[in-house]
Amino acid sequence: LADVVGADGVVTDGDELAHFGSDRCRGGWPVDPAMIVFARSASHVQGVVRACAAHGVAIVPSGGRTGLSGAATATQGEVVLSLQRMGRVLDIDEVARTLRCEAGTIVQTVQETAASVGLLYPVAFAAQGSAVVGGTIATNAGGLRVVRYGHTRDWVMGLSVVLASGELVELGGQLFKNNTGYDLRQLFIGSEGTLGVIVEATLRLCEPPRGTVSALCAVPDDSTVLAVFTRARRHGLTLQAFECFDRRCLEHVQEHRGRERIGPFSAPSPQHALIEVEVTGYGPDAEDHARDELTTCLASAQDAGEITDAVIAATRQQSVQLWSLREDITESLHRYTPFKSDVALPLARVTAFLEAFRARVAEALPDIETVVFGHVGDGNLHLNILRPEAMELDEFVRRCAGFADEMYAMVRAHGGSISAEHGIGLLKRPYLHYSRSPEEIAMMRAVKRAIDPDGLFNPGKIFEP
Amino acid sequence: LADVVGADGVVTDGDELAHFGSDRCRGGWPVDPAMIVFARSASHVQGVVRACAAHGVAIVPSGGRTGLSGAATATQGEVVLSLQRMGRVLDIDEVARTLRCEAGTIVQTVQETAASVGLLYPVAFAAQGSAVVGGTIATNAGGLRVVRYGHTRDWVMGLSVVLASGELVELGGQLFKNNTGYDLRQLFIGSEGTLGVIVEATLRLCEPPRGTVSALCAVPDDSTVLAVFTRARRHGLTLQAFECFDRRCLEHVQEHRGRERIGPFSAPSPQHALIEVEVTGYGPDAEDHARDELTTCLASAQDAGEITDAVIAATRQQSVQLWSLREDITESLHRYTPFKSDVALPLARVTAFLEAFRARVAEALPDIETVVFGHVGDGNLHLNILRPEAMELDEFVRRCAGFADEMYAMVRAHGGSISAEHGIGLLKRPYLHYSRSPEEIAMMRAVKRAIDPDGLFNPGKIFEP
Repeated sequence: LADVVGADGVVTDGDELAHFGSDRCRGGWPVDPAMIVFARSASHVQGVVRACAAHGVAIVPSGGRTGLSGAATATQGEVVLSLQRMGRVLDIDEVARTLRCEAGTIVQTVQETAASVGLLYPVAFAAQGSAVVGGTIATNAGGLRVVRYGHTRDWVMGLSVVLASGELVELGGQLFKNNTGYDLRQLFIGSEGTLGVIVEATLRLCEPPRGTVSALCAVPDDSTVLAVFTRARRHGLTLQAFECFDRRCLEHVQEHRGRERIGPFSAPSPQHALIEVEVTGYGPDAEDHARDELTTCLASAQDAGEITDAVIAATRQQSVQLWSLREDITESLHRYTPFKSDVALPLARVTAFLEAFRARVAEALPDIETVVFGHVGDGNLHLNILRPEAMELDEFVRRCAGFADEMYAMVRAHGGSISAEHGIGLLKRPYLHYSRSPEEIAMMRAVKRAIDPDGLFNPGKIFEP
Repeated sequence: LADVVGADGVVTDGDELAHFGSDRCRGGWPVDPAMIVFARSASHVQGVVRACAAHGVAIVPSGGRTGLSGAATATQGEVVLSLQRMGRVLDIDEVARTLRCEAGTIVQTVQETAASVGLLYPVAFAAQGSAVVGGTIATNAGGLRVVRYGHTRDWVMGLSVVLASGELVELGGQLFKNNTGYDLRQLFIGSEGTLGVIVEATLRLCEPPRGTVSALCAVPDDSTVLAVFTRARRHGLTLQAFECFDRRCLEHVQEHRGRERIGPFSAPSPQHALIEVEVTGYGPDAEDHARDELTTCLASAQDAGEITDAVIAATRQQSVQLWSLREDITESLHRYTPFKSDVALPLARVTAFLEAFRARVAEALPDIETVVFGHVGDGNLHLNILRPEAMELDEFVRRCAGFADEMYAMVRAHGGSISAEHGIGLLKRPYLHYSRSPEEIAMMRAVKRAIDPDGLFNPGKIFEP
């Protein structure tokens, strides 16, 4: 391997093995890579793959290691193949609105490069400053603007991938249209490094919004959040985001910041809807019109009793403040070592699911607090179960694990998904059957065998080998 | 089979066999189905698949038979499994903006059902009054609004598919987000009936545009069409469509209608750009603003010499008239039994490709006329080679076939695709290698074997078995 990538490209030092051998998700598994290999080019990747294949050593493809499901963790002496040193933007085409880059390019670099020519790469999420393009493709990253822009999948135009044979294949190219048989590119999107190594991507870009207007609404309960969403849609507002967070989320952020009161309301409400509306249209009054429409819509919601209070940000700074209430939730919960979940429901089932979920939590985990927030416009809820300070971590993990099966069974019963955004990796592998049928899992295994017959790439991720 | 679908569901009569045994593409292959079987439910489809599998008889899934590549044609005694009697819209969710329907539902029915609740199913193309949802998914249909709304792929949320085992699997459900392993749904989109039978789909819908403004521009040459497109994009116009057609296209439509002059200009121009701009924004003046922006943009293009004349439709009727010039091209060429192609290029290569193509056609087919039109905003060109009246069909076909290899090699040299929208089927199977590498074709075969191991579905389509 040192012959392939140079001596400085191979790391076997203990601390570095631990650092580069795992993503952000720590579970009950060991972190045990044989070594870390840093490629600097597609041909490096080809050489590493060929060498590993020849010696029967498995490969864990690795990017920014910001994943939340253990998909980029080596647990059994694999070679971790890092693309972190392949971070160049290769090309940007302002007219076709495409950007070509190496797979190790940081997402924020893509966003900034796009912005430098007046365009937008619209996939945006908390880890965008560390996550790399290849990793976001392999996990089909979502984020805050999915309700408007979809997932990473929707922005991948072409991929270059190194297969288990060491061959470099180009899937898709720079083409908007290409109906020439199976779209193999799609298989690699969301494959969590199990089918090959993504070494280069051509991403689509779009025009940025002309502006946005944000509002925070106090909402009396879970079901009414959906009523507000319905109203906003029917009103014809172009939503850039529609987020919710419950009373306890706001209280935790409040506590975390050490203040008595935050946010615009005199007291936290049972639920909150954070709405971002896009300014559309060409005229000089476009932003005023968007603000007027949002105001009218919220006034009618207030008349209908769907919101008890609302504030529309008047300035950019106010908007940032409103958004920080949502964005700081995760950090404010950190001290509780929460048991996190990332479920998706059909929109029509969100309310019924939440009702059933809250009732069951109250029964099954009476002394344990649960908070709910999420990208409710996509039906995506982050349900966080918090460890009471007095409870040992072991007991907490045991009780949560006991509840997880029940929770995911409820998700299934409501036609939902056990992983909206984060993928399966190692963390949710035991629960995969709640979202995918035996026939589907058999098809996935068959596809894996068809493309990576010797199981070279990321064995044990998503499903058991 | 009669036990499965009822006696009235099985057709063996000669004329009907010919009618239902083929799509719109006639090539050098026979039309030779064993029989036509009409399913009325998913369980009918399961029963037919199980019976055919048990007897080793291949199945050609069939919908509206509007395909243009022979993918829905039975050539070797297959059972044609028609979903034409499964045409029910099952559910529409106005808030989630989804519509669930049987696979045999006509696309126009989906559009009309969406419109009845104020929503849009944006996949629109000439055959939408006959084509059915399952077929458009199996071919990933594009059309006139791809530059704004993408392909059918972008609007498929969930699929129900019957596999070769007879099992019915649900892929995707009613979920916007579902990152739980390989997105198998994507494999079936564009698979041309070779992996299973799509029996039901959940489609996404969107808000319709607030209005549109159309303009026709006279453009001095091919390369300048791209300059106008570039200008429109840089200007920030939201394009619903950006089409082009050359002088001969307009002259053929003129001749076809039997008039001396059609269209707004005193004479056809070497090229034409047909532009449709979306009215965006909330105010009462939104349409005026869109019109003003388009006017400003076209005025600057005229100042720059990119367009020599332009007309902006003042009324809905004028807009329909402008669009009819583009829409009538295909029919006006029909009498020439044209050799059609449907290629896509990276936008940055469209001009260079057209230059090379026109030069080579002038050399290789000096006595044969070629016309160029297409969805140039997507890099998608329909190159039509017309049969001279004096030339026998056989000789024409022979000469075109001789040229096809050369043309597709040029497409490949420019990084293009030999089939932008129409798929491969039987028609373009000999040319698949111009767009997909040997490694890709090997992967496609491996995927086919993984999912349909006995080759039950549509053998010989896309690639040789």
